[in-house]
Amino acid sequence: MSTATRSRHDVVDALHSVIPAARVVVDDSELARYSHDDAEWAPFVAPIAVVRPETLEEVAAVVRRAAELGIRIVPRGAGTGLSGGANAVEDSIVLTLERMAAVLEVNTAERFVRAQAGVLNDALRAAVAEHGLWYPPDPASSAISTIGGNAATNAGGICCVKYGVTRDYVLGMTVVLADGSVVRLGRSTAKGVVGYDLTHLLVGSEGTLGIIVELTLKLLPLAGREERAVVGSFPSLTAAGDAVAAISAAGIIPSALEIIDRTCLRAVDDWQGLGLPHEVDTMLLAKVDEPGVVGDAAAARVAELMAAAGAVSTETAADRDEVARLFLARRLAYPALERLGPVLTEDICVPRAAVPEMLARIQQAAEDNDVTIANIAHAGDGNLHPLIIAPEGDDAAKDRAKRAFDRIVDDCLALGGTVTGEHGVGLLKLPGAGAELGERVLELHRSIKDALDPRGILNPGKAFPA
Amino acid sequence: MSTATRSRHDVVDALHSVIPAARVVVDDSELARYSHDDAEWAPFVAPIAVVRPETLEEVAAVVRRAAELGIRIVPRGAGTGLSGGANAVEDSIVLTLERMAAVLEVNTAERFVRAQAGVLNDALRAAVAEHGLWYPPDPASSAISTIGGNAATNAGGICCVKYGVTRDYVLGMTVVLADGSVVRLGRSTAKGVVGYDLTHLLVGSEGTLGIIVELTLKLLPLAGREERAVVGSFPSLTAAGDAVAAISAAGIIPSALEIIDRTCLRAVDDWQGLGLPHEVDTMLLAKVDEPGVVGDAAAARVAELMAAAGAVSTETAADRDEVARLFLARRLAYPALERLGPVLTEDICVPRAAVPEMLARIQQAAEDNDVTIANIAHAGDGNLHPLIIAPEGDDAAKDRAKRAFDRIVDDCLALGGTVTGEHGVGLLKLPGAGAELGERVLELHRSIKDALDPRGILNPGKAFPA
Repeated sequence: MSTATRSRHDVVDALHSVIPAARVVVDDSELARYSHDDAEWAPFVAPIAVVRPETLEEVAAVVRRAAELGIRIVPRGAGTGLSGGANAVEDSIVLTLERMAAVLEVNTAERFVRAQAGVLNDALRAAVAEHGLWYPPDPASSAISTIGGNAATNAGGICCVKYGVTRDYVLGMTVVLADGSVVRLGRSTAKGVVGYDLTHLLVGSEGTLGIIVELTLKLLPLAGREERAVVGSFPSLTAAGDAVAAISAAGIIPSALEIIDRTCLRAVDDWQGLGLPHEVDTMLLAKVDEPGVVGDAAAARVAELMAAAGAVSTETAADRDEVARLFLARRLAYPALERLGPVLTEDICVPRAAVPEMLARIQQAAEDNDVTIANIAHAGDGNLHPLIIAPEGDDAAKDRAKRAFDRIVDDCLALGGTVTGEHGVGLLKLPGAGAELGERVLELHRSIKDALDPRGILNPGKAFPA
Repeated sequence: MSTATRSRHDVVDALHSVIPAARVVVDDSELARYSHDDAEWAPFVAPIAVVRPETLEEVAAVVRRAAELGIRIVPRGAGTGLSGGANAVEDSIVLTLERMAAVLEVNTAERFVRAQAGVLNDALRAAVAEHGLWYPPDPASSAISTIGGNAATNAGGICCVKYGVTRDYVLGMTVVLADGSVVRLGRSTAKGVVGYDLTHLLVGSEGTLGIIVELTLKLLPLAGREERAVVGSFPSLTAAGDAVAAISAAGIIPSALEIIDRTCLRAVDDWQGLGLPHEVDTMLLAKVDEPGVVGDAAAARVAELMAAAGAVSTETAADRDEVARLFLARRLAYPALERLGPVLTEDICVPRAAVPEMLARIQQAAEDNDVTIANIAHAGDGNLHPLIIAPEGDDAAKDRAKRAFDRIVDDCLALGGTVTGEHGVGLLKLPGAGAELGERVLELHRSIKDALDPRGILNPGKAFPA
């Protein structure tokens, strides 16, 4: 019996001693499935085992036992991350919260929801909508990602430009710490300033400081919003960038403001035959959601500003289906590009005003490295997603794609940006995070990690360079 | 020469070796002035010296030297805190950021302001308003408190019910750490998830983890809001509480929702002769700020809901002066009560629905301890400020006031609340914080404090029980 096999045997025995055997998976195909998230470009190995606990007590028991034995734990939700934060590391078990998917309480008087970490974002939204409430954060993965994963990565989305990110909605949480103890952090009241803000420290910590098992999330009223879409077609990226700046300067905060570049538009058009006119180079898609005449006026003003910035045409819709139709190109962008080959998804955030310059630099990085890069961007936030495409099976192209990726990170920092706007550091952004944070701030990270996880068993090697 | 004197001499010499002598104050009356914030009920002593640095480099130099010598530092802004967070402790120097009061950059394209910690909240608002921008957090102390102090305590205010607290607006900061090193935390982009959220960890940490010297604060457009006030007079606290619940249930998020109780109203009326009708027991003051007909409709709906809940009368205003007039009783409440004797200001936050029950328990605590307690409350947040009044010079009454204070903290926890909604733990809320957080979470606090300030020189003994 090899060391690796005996080790697995020991680990599984240890797990069986604290939770039902049915929760522990060692099937090779399952281990492969749980070995990485959606960042296959980042390193990963098969875990020793996958644990699927069904209660808080089971999570705590597993962590306690793992802590005693020094077994490393990679926590995960649905594994939709794009930075490798949930990729399994050497000698680790993967602990998935998927089976803890109950909505525990929808409190209409206080406007919060309490839910287990494994609830899907869309399921949570649907559950609270039945009570006339709204959970705003809307990552593109909302149909398939869990709110625990959203919190661990501080997920963003399209409506952040107006409504903020996951962190802005996390009031409290139940966390299993690195020693297996269980703590409740935060509050369920509207305000509160007792002690350090450990709740928000855990948000975005990518499972390195504790395992989020339950969340209390702030909600907004569902009523009172009326979505209108305004879509402008622009002859150039610069003109679309000017429109973004003009909308911001006018004091309008749209509930979505997305740019789709030429490469992306052509990929969608080639696939779906949208019949885009030849002169359309860039599309700017906005939503406003004020009710009644106020919303009408905001939509009209956005359309005016787009036209003044040089839009070839603008289209406005208030009807739900029409709004969806106008945003079709945005929804199809990612699948259209995936048809062209494996996509390495970048995620950077620059000052809004630097968006056109950054997009120009991205195109230069594409040319210099002979790769295709398409862009979708949360332009209203300055949050860009360059999508780097390498033909299937072409290792040289994959290397060039990685070089372009690194170059984009460098350019983003040079423009005063941050190396990850919403996808997280995981493994893919470790060098960029190091460059951005600097040595003294990294020391702070290490000291906090040591303080909360002295044996380093929780998702080691993620979130910041060791 | 006594030990104390030699010690002061040594400390002053050490300070003079790193900053100009004019920055160091040892005058007795000045030391007394800087020995406490607005929480004279909490313990304090005179500091060894007061340091008034004028640059980031001076702050860093002082902290570095103090760290070498093991001198404790109590950082402070304007000293308007109500929990004793800036009260001087044994063998400490007070480091005030008051003289660093420059607005460094107002960026209209990105909607942020960069400012030194010593800028007054109102001065910051005025500076950004010139650029069509708005900084929402509005603590009652806004005319006299600094944004550095606001950030160190995560200050709230009246408009938090809709716009959130200080933490929601802090994008980044420059911090002098406990060893005198300088780090920049956070970002100036709209989004970003690189590394741990150290920025928000520092917010509300009451100077125990680092000294905030400069802040980057998110702003909103100034345009697009139109304030309307709706004030209802109620025959009972319960009726006003019902109105609060009905407004929340209707999905309306007012930009202010304040309750003033009978004791408070009578104090204002006795002082200013407002001519309040006898049947008025409680006043509920709301603002809505949607523009145009949407705002008209919201104001009308709030007035309807107040009437349906039993308001004796309601008054609505849209004109700026009229809005101010309707909120007059709120503005006069605190000074009216201070005429009755020294005020011990409580600050608790309970679930919105528990506000009437909590207010009833507060009255019971007043009766049982034979003290006067008046209440102003950010009712829309469940954030209550019971104001406990003891006659000047009556030590027995002061003791009874403290007992009532502790009883209110206990009751607040029993109702699922938090012991401080916006004033912070400081020294006054240490026992309550201990009860609320529990031993394991306190251990996390200690381990983080040790990680960032291993020698314990930054504001020791504050923010959480040691």
